Amino acid sequence: MPNSIKVQLLLTGNEIMSGVTSDTNSTRMAHALSTLGISIHRKVTVGDDITLLIEALQNQSQNSNVLIVNGGLGPTVDDLSVEAAAKAFDLSIKKHPDAFSHVQNWCKRIHAELNQANLKQSYLPEGADILANSIGSAVGFSLVQNNCLILFTPGVPSELEAMLDNAILPKLKVKFPNITQAYIERLHFFGIGESRFQQTVDDKITDWPEEVTLSFRAGSPTLEVKLTSFHKSHASIKDACRKQLFNLFGDYFITEGNSTLAEALVKLLKENNKRITFAESCTGGKMASLLTEVSGASQVFDAGFVSYSNTIKNQLLNVKLETIEQHGAVSEKVVNEMLLGALKLSQADYGIAVSGIAGPDGGSDEKPIGTVCFAWGSPNDYQSCTFLMPRSRKMFQLMVAATGFDLIRRKICNIEEAPIYFGRKRLS
Amino acid sequence: MPNSIKVQLLLTGNEIMSGVTSDTNSTRMAHALSTLGISIHRKVTVGDDITLLIEALQNQSQNSNVLIVNGGLGPTVDDLSVEAAAKAFDLSIKKHPDAFSHVQNWCKRIHAELNQANLKQSYLPEGADILANSIGSAVGFSLVQNNCLILFTPGVPSELEAMLDNAILPKLKVKFPNITQAYIERLHFFGIGESRFQQTVDDKITDWPEEVTLSFRAGSPTLEVKLTSFHKSHASIKDACRKQLFNLFGDYFITEGNSTLAEALVKLLKENNKRITFAESCTGGKMASLLTEVSGASQVFDAGFVSYSNTIKNQLLNVKLETIEQHGAVSEKVVNEMLLGALKLSQADYGIAVSGIAGPDGGSDEKPIGTVCFAWGSPNDYQSCTFLMPRSRKMFQLMVAATGFDLIRRKICNIEEAPIYFGRKRLS
Repeated sequence: MPNSIKVQLLLTGNEIMSGVTSDTNSTRMAHALSTLGISIHRKVTVGDDITLLIEALQNQSQNSNVLIVNGGLGPTVDDLSVEAAAKAFDLSIKKHPDAFSHVQNWCKRIHAELNQANLKQSYLPEGADILANSIGSAVGFSLVQNNCLILFTPGVPSELEAMLDNAILPKLKVKFPNITQAYIERLHFFGIGESRFQQTVDDKITDWPEEVTLSFRAGSPTLEVKLTSFHKSHASIKDACRKQLFNLFGDYFITEGNSTLAEALVKLLKENNKRITFAESCTGGKMASLLTEVSGASQVFDAGFVSYSNTIKNQLLNVKLETIEQHGAVSEKVVNEMLLGALKLSQADYGIAVSGIAGPDGGSDEKPIGTVCFAWGSPNDYQSCTFLMPRSRKMFQLMVAATGFDLIRRKICNIEEAPIYFGRKRLS
Repeated sequence: MPNSIKVQLLLTGNEIMSGVTSDTNSTRMAHALSTLGISIHRKVTVGDDITLLIEALQNQSQNSNVLIVNGGLGPTVDDLSVEAAAKAFDLSIKKHPDAFSHVQNWCKRIHAELNQANLKQSYLPEGADILANSIGSAVGFSLVQNNCLILFTPGVPSELEAMLDNAILPKLKVKFPNITQAYIERLHFFGIGESRFQQTVDDKITDWPEEVTLSFRAGSPTLEVKLTSFHKSHASIKDACRKQLFNLFGDYFITEGNSTLAEALVKLLKENNKRITFAESCTGGKMASLLTEVSGASQVFDAGFVSYSNTIKNQLLNVKLETIEQHGAVSEKVVNEMLLGALKLSQADYGIAVSGIAGPDGGSDEKPIGTVCFAWGSPNDYQSCTFLMPRSRKMFQLMVAATGFDLIRRKICNIEEAPIYFGRKRLS
């Protein structure tokens, strides 16, 4: 069962209060804490206001075991966490040697001079222990007040993420040695939505065991399915659940843990010792960009072609002008020729070609916004299809790129039939 | 000065606390309220827990003019807002005739029978006024307690959005007829960090007027600078501030409002009736992808080339193999040849070529991770340089793409000298 440790959050920042930024850090913290079986009890958010911060620190620390404060550690005048902590608990502010050497090293690493603003970040309330920040200039720090462990963390998401893994979770394990560990498996699926997944589970697995919690996070573009249990001895029960899910949804399974769709494709290509290329029209480079975000992509990728105009489709990829005239740039005939052109230029083993109507302009009755044609495969074994995926422009590009990755995954793994992605209409 | 109306939020829902859903409703509410010059003072988030809800309602209503409660109006057992309100303020729960006819009409509209769960939604605390919900089954409602106007709103984002426009903002205007408006300008700069900006303002503008608030958001990749004033008559004072900032940082200014770096480049190219192309190695398609996220990019962009391997640099872009052997793939000689190759193939007016070491592998003493060479310009007028930008792989790709965009912006606008981006060392 979950732990009884009471955790509260205090989020600070005018940009969160004003709506300029959506708070995604709470989600990060909730996920990290859930790996220890801890849930968050209450959360308070205030702007960069010293009075409200002091009040919240005093109040929230009084009835919790842990208070995580997020934001307000930056170098500017509106970063008030240190000052608020000192005033709330009547502590002096002192230059902390570890914080100072952190800031010094950080400046050295990015080849910048140490200025007054950064120097401010080495001053902490007396008695603070620092929490290492492997990425940014601001160290985090911890205090114990009102019998509550207070953790001050940076607002920059990537810095918080690293600190959660490297400093905060380890610290909580030391502070609460009897903490129940949550055993979590995160499985990523593509092409199926949360409600269809849940409904199918409800219909087909009527004896789901209570030792294992099933939960979802609708990511973009994959669906994350989480299996959680709270005792080692439940491992075999969870294994059985996992097997049942794979029986139902194995064809949609991409990867697990922190791995992404693009990482899974790079891994699959490496294992098969194959290379890939892309001929992109409507995605405008998104497929190449997602793939090369993966370290080691150069082992499976030499070349990508963004052929946005008809002229370039013709001159670079050798798409016949007659084909474009007869069938339109968004047609399976055109993507087939784009694919062959890209495969020839790059000499890759596999390729994906896409052409579609991203919107917001350019749709017609025959080919509405969201129409997209795919061709994928190798020079002697390729196929094509057309989907309707109406989304905002940016989301359309992401979903089309991900669908392309999935089509070639299915090809390489011999999963023949393309699914009706997310229930969207397959036009041909 | 800002409106002195004190507004608090109370958000409820297990899915927000557990991190399954990110809270985006706060952002909606903050934006809507900001149009009346109202900022949110404090926000509390709790799970579906009746005790915590009652406590929060009593506490937050005591020192605010307005409390907006979001979530907990649905038909299921974990929707507790009505019960919590009744218990917090000792009110009975009664069937509300307007709420009942709303639920009846809603069921009729979606051709569903009125069931017990929906019927529950017509029971409200005594004395409640309803807030129309034009979309969903749950009406909102308002109460006045502790001299505070408490507004209960639905958690479904689209329903909240409609209710804000149709019911809540009008109600606030009636309740607070003397409401003032906030005047906000958002300016985006590239190449300068928050701390150097702030330091320079502190040093050079010693008489900054108190009528105008200066605040920052360190976005990726731009720095957002916000100027806020609270009275029309302060427009000229704010104009003067803006002018002073442009005197200091005009060369770094990219765009304003909601517009992005890529949008600004598309606009600039359109205005100059020019086209652009990219020859990308380390960015792997990021430049093309960012540019084509902008609607209308096809007017300024025909083709992009992702030349990841040396072979492709040679065969596609005509980079000499001797050049690569003599100087390495990450060299200004190579990016110059990549640029010319891409310009020739695409027949674009301008081009950007990049080659660098994204990491985490591949660095050397001579060319450490983060080294990146740029070439940019037109066939007869181009230049090159080398920067050191050590970052995580994904951030490196984003920053290099953005820096490329900025270098060509400076070229088109005749801002000759490339800056020391974010204090990073320019190697040549």
